[in-house]
Amino acid sequence: MEMLAAAIAVGMGALGAGLGNGMIVKSTVESIARQPEAKSALQTTMFIGVGIVEVIPLAATLIAFLIMFS
Amino acid sequence: MEMLAAAIAVGMGALGAGLGNGMIVKSTVESIARQPEAKSALQTTMFIGVGIVEVIPLAATLIAFLIMFS
Amino acid sequence: MEMLAAAIAVGMGALGAGLGNGMIVKSTVESIARQPEAKSALQTTMFIGVGIVEVIPLAATLIAFLIMFS
Amino acid sequence: MEMLAAAIAVGMGALGAGLGNGMIVKSTVESIARQPEAKSALQTTMFIGVGIVEVIPLAATLIAFLIMFS
Amino acid sequence: MEMLAAAIAVGMGALGAGLGNGMIVKSTVESIARQPEAKSALQTTMFIGVGIVEVIPLAATLIAFLIMFS
Amino acid sequence: MEMLAAAIAVGMGALGAGLGNGMIVKSTVESIARQPEAKSALQTTMFIGVGIVEVIPLAATLIAFLIMFS
Amino acid sequence: MEMLAAAIAVGMGALGAGLGNGMIVKSTVESIARQPEAKSALQTTMFIGVGIVEVIPLAATLIAFLIMFS
Amino acid sequence: MEMLAAAIAVGMGALGAGLGNGMIVKSTVESIARQPEAKSALQTTMFIGVGIVEVIPLAATLIAFLIMFS
Amino acid sequence: MEMLAAAIAVGMGALGAGLGNGMIVKSTVESIARQPEAKSALQTTMFIGVGIVEVIPLAATLIAFLIMFS
Amino acid sequence: MEMLAAAIAVGMGALGAGLGNGMIVKSTVESIARQPEAKSALQTTMFIGVGIVEVIPLAATLIAFLIMFS
Amino acid sequence: MEMLAAAIAVGMGALGAGLGNGMIVKSTVESIARQPEAKSALQTTMFIGVGIVEVIPLAATLIAFLIMFS
Amino acid sequence: MEMLAAAIAVGMGALGAGLGNGMIVKSTVESIARQPEAKSALQTTMFIGVGIVEVIPLAATLIAFLIMFS
Amino acid sequence: MEMLAAAIAVGMGALGAGLGNGMIVKSTVESIARQPEAKSALQTTMFIGVGIVEVIPLAATLIAFLIMFS
Amino acid sequence: MEMLAAAIAVGMGALGAGLGNGMIVKSTVESIARQPEAKSALQTTMFIGVGIVEVIPLAATLIAFLIMFS
Repeated sequence: MEMLAAAIAVGMGALGAGLGNGMIVKSTVESIARQPEAKSALQTTMFIGVGIVEVIPLAATLIAFLIMFS
Repeated sequence: MEMLAAAIAVGMGALGAGLGNGMIVKSTVESIARQPEAKSALQTTMFIGVGIVEVIPLAATLIAFLIMFS
Repeated sequence: MEMLAAAIAVGMGALGAGLGNGMIVKSTVESIARQPEAKSALQTTMFIGVGIVEVIPLAATLIAFLIMFS
Repeated sequence: MEMLAAAIAVGMGALGAGLGNGMIVKSTVESIARQPEAKSALQTTMFIGVGIVEVIPLAATLIAFLIMFS
Repeated sequence: MEMLAAAIAVGMGALGAGLGNGMIVKSTVESIARQPEAKSALQTTMFIGVGIVEVIPLAATLIAFLIMFS
Repeated sequence: MEMLAAAIAVGMGALGAGLGNGMIVKSTVESIARQPEAKSALQTTMFIGVGIVEVIPLAATLIAFLIMFS
Repeated sequence: MEMLAAAIAVGMGALGAGLGNGMIVKSTVESIARQPEAKSALQTTMFIGVGIVEVIPLAATLIAFLIMFS
Repeated sequence: MEMLAAAIAVGMGALGAGLGNGMIVKSTVESIARQPEAKSALQTTMFIGVGIVEVIPLAATLIAFLIMFS
Repeated sequence: MEMLAAAIAVGMGALGAGLGNGMIVKSTVESIARQPEAKSALQTTMFIGVGIVEVIPLAATLIAFLIMFS
Repeated sequence: MEMLAAAIAVGMGALGAGLGNGMIVKSTVESIARQPEAKSALQTTMFIGVGIVEVIPLAATLIAFLIMFS
Repeated sequence: MEMLAAAIAVGMGALGAGLGNGMIVKSTVESIARQPEAKSALQTTMFIGVGIVEVIPLAATLIAFLIMFS
Repeated sequence: MEMLAAAIAVGMGALGAGLGNGMIVKSTVESIARQPEAKSALQTTMFIGVGIVEVIPLAATLIAFLIMFS
Repeated sequence: MEMLAAAIAVGMGALGAGLGNGMIVKSTVESIARQPEAKSALQTTMFIGVGIVEVIPLAATLIAFLIMFS
Repeated sequence: MEMLAAAIAVGMGALGAGLGNGMIVKSTVESIARQPEAKSALQTTMFIGVGIVEVIPLAATLIAFLIMFS
């Protein structure tokens, strides 16, 4: 049951990170194509955003590792 | 069963945080591309928003850690 | 079973808060980009809104803590 | 089983309140940005609306507390 | 099992009331912003609507209380 | 099991009534804002509509009460 | 198990009737607002439509009563 | 188990008939509002359509009655 | 278990037939309203279409009867 | 269990055939209304299409009969 | 259990083939109505496409037969 | 259980291949109708695309055969 | 249970690869039709993209083979 | 159960990576077709994005391998 728990934790984290980051990077790419001169401002915002989105999935990955080796 | 509970807590938190923050940062990026001069006001609002959205998923992560080490 | 109950309570609360607050902050950011002069009025409405939305998820988090330590 | 029941009650209440209030506040924010002079009328309607929407989720939270301490 | 039944009854009632009332108040707010002079007529219709929508969720809440104390 | 049956009956009735009536009242509110002079005709149609929609959920509520007290 | 069967029958009937009638009355209200002079023709069509849609949910309600009292 | 089977048969039939007929009558009402002079042709097509759609749900209802009384 | 199988067969058949025929008749009604002079050609195509769509749901109904009386 | 297998095979086949053929005939009807002179070419393509779509659902129906009588 | 496996294999194959081929033939019919002179090129592409889409569902049907007669 | 595993593998492969290839061929057909002179370039890209999409479903089919005959 | 695990791994990999690659190739085909002179740049980006998307499904396929032969 | 856990971990990782990367590469391809001169900036952003999206699915794949060989 521990292995199943680790798999669910990292799997739902991957789904959440994939959807969230996918939406952010998608809109960044489209915005750079529409406003190439705002590229650095958009990329800065993107990095902040993906950093925030990754917090919880990384914690989920950490918990999955903890479940497996404890 | 404790491990499964921790996995579900952090997994649903990651999904909620990913979708919620994804929507916020996505609209911020698109708004900065449309109104580059309002960049600081938009980023301030974004930081407030992601801070509010992260409250419950962080509590979920905390609960997951508490479940695992208690 | 208590741990699973706490995980479901805080997990569904995180989902509800993420989706609800995500919608609110998203529209606030887009509205500020469209009407920068109405920024304070929009942020006031946003704070009221996220305050109302957070009530039930915070109660869910509280219930999760109560389930775990009782 | 009582704990699981309390978690489901407050969790579904949080989902319903998050989605319902999210829709209301989202449209209020967008409407204030489009019609800043109608701000008070819109906020009054919003307060009535979120008050009505919160009735059942608050009852769900109350029931969850009652389940836990009875 | 009685507690679970009460939780499901009030939880689905909260979901139904949240979605239904959310749609009604959302469109009322947007309509007042578009037609401020029709505010009283719109609010009257809104009150009738939310009153009708709340009938069944309130019955669900009542049934949940009856299940718990019988 | 009887309690669970009553909860499911009234819960699904609340979902159906919430979604159906929500759609009807939403379109009525938007139509009154677009055509204020047709208000009485629209409200009459709305009352007929919600009356028809409520028939089956009210029967569901009645069945839930019958299940509980028989 | 009989009670659960009755609840599912009337519950799914309520969902089907709510969604079907909701769509019909919604489009009737919007059509009357767009063409007020065709009101009687539209209402006649609406009555025929909701009559047809209600046939199976009413049979579901009847079956639910038959299940309960047999 | 027979009762549950009857409930599922008539319930899914009600869902199918509600969605199918709802779509047909909805488009008929909107088409009459757009082309009032084609009313009889549209209603004839509608009657043929709902007659065809109702065949299988009526068979499902018949099967539900047969399951209950055999 | 035979009764449940018959119910699932005819229920999924009713769902498939309702959705498929609903889409076909809906587009036929809208097309006749847009092109009244092509009415016979459209109705011929519609009859061919619903005939083809009904084949498998009718087979499902037949199988449901066969399951019940064998 | 054989009966349940036959019901699932023919039921999923009916769903797939209903959705697939519904999409094809719907677009054919709309295309004939837009281009009446291309009627024969469109109907030929439609017949080829529904023939191809029906292959697997008919195989599912055949398998359902084989399951029942073997 | 073999019969259930055969039913699931051919049923999911029918769903996949119905949705995939339905999308392809639908767009072919609409494209022929928009560009009648490109009919042969479009039909050639359609035949290649449905041939490719049918490969896996046909393998699923083959596997279902193999499961049943082995 | 081996048979069920083979059925799930090939069934999900058929769903994935049907949806993926359906999207690709659909857009190719619509693009050829819009740009007939780019037909060969579009078909080349289509062949590369469906070849890439088919890799994993073909592996799933291969695994299903291996499960059955091992 | 090993066989079921292999089937789920390769099946979900096929779903993910089908949806992801389908979206990429679909937009490449439409973009080539709109900008034929950018064909090589678009195809290069497409190859990079499908290569990245295929990494995890190929790992899933590899894991499925490892599960089966270990 | 270990094998099932590995399959779920890598399968949900493949779904998340497929959807996330699919969205990113899709918008990159469309943006290059609309702004060919911004190709290098768009591809750089795309590489950063897919690198971020792949982190959690790669961790899921790693965990799946760890589950299998430990």
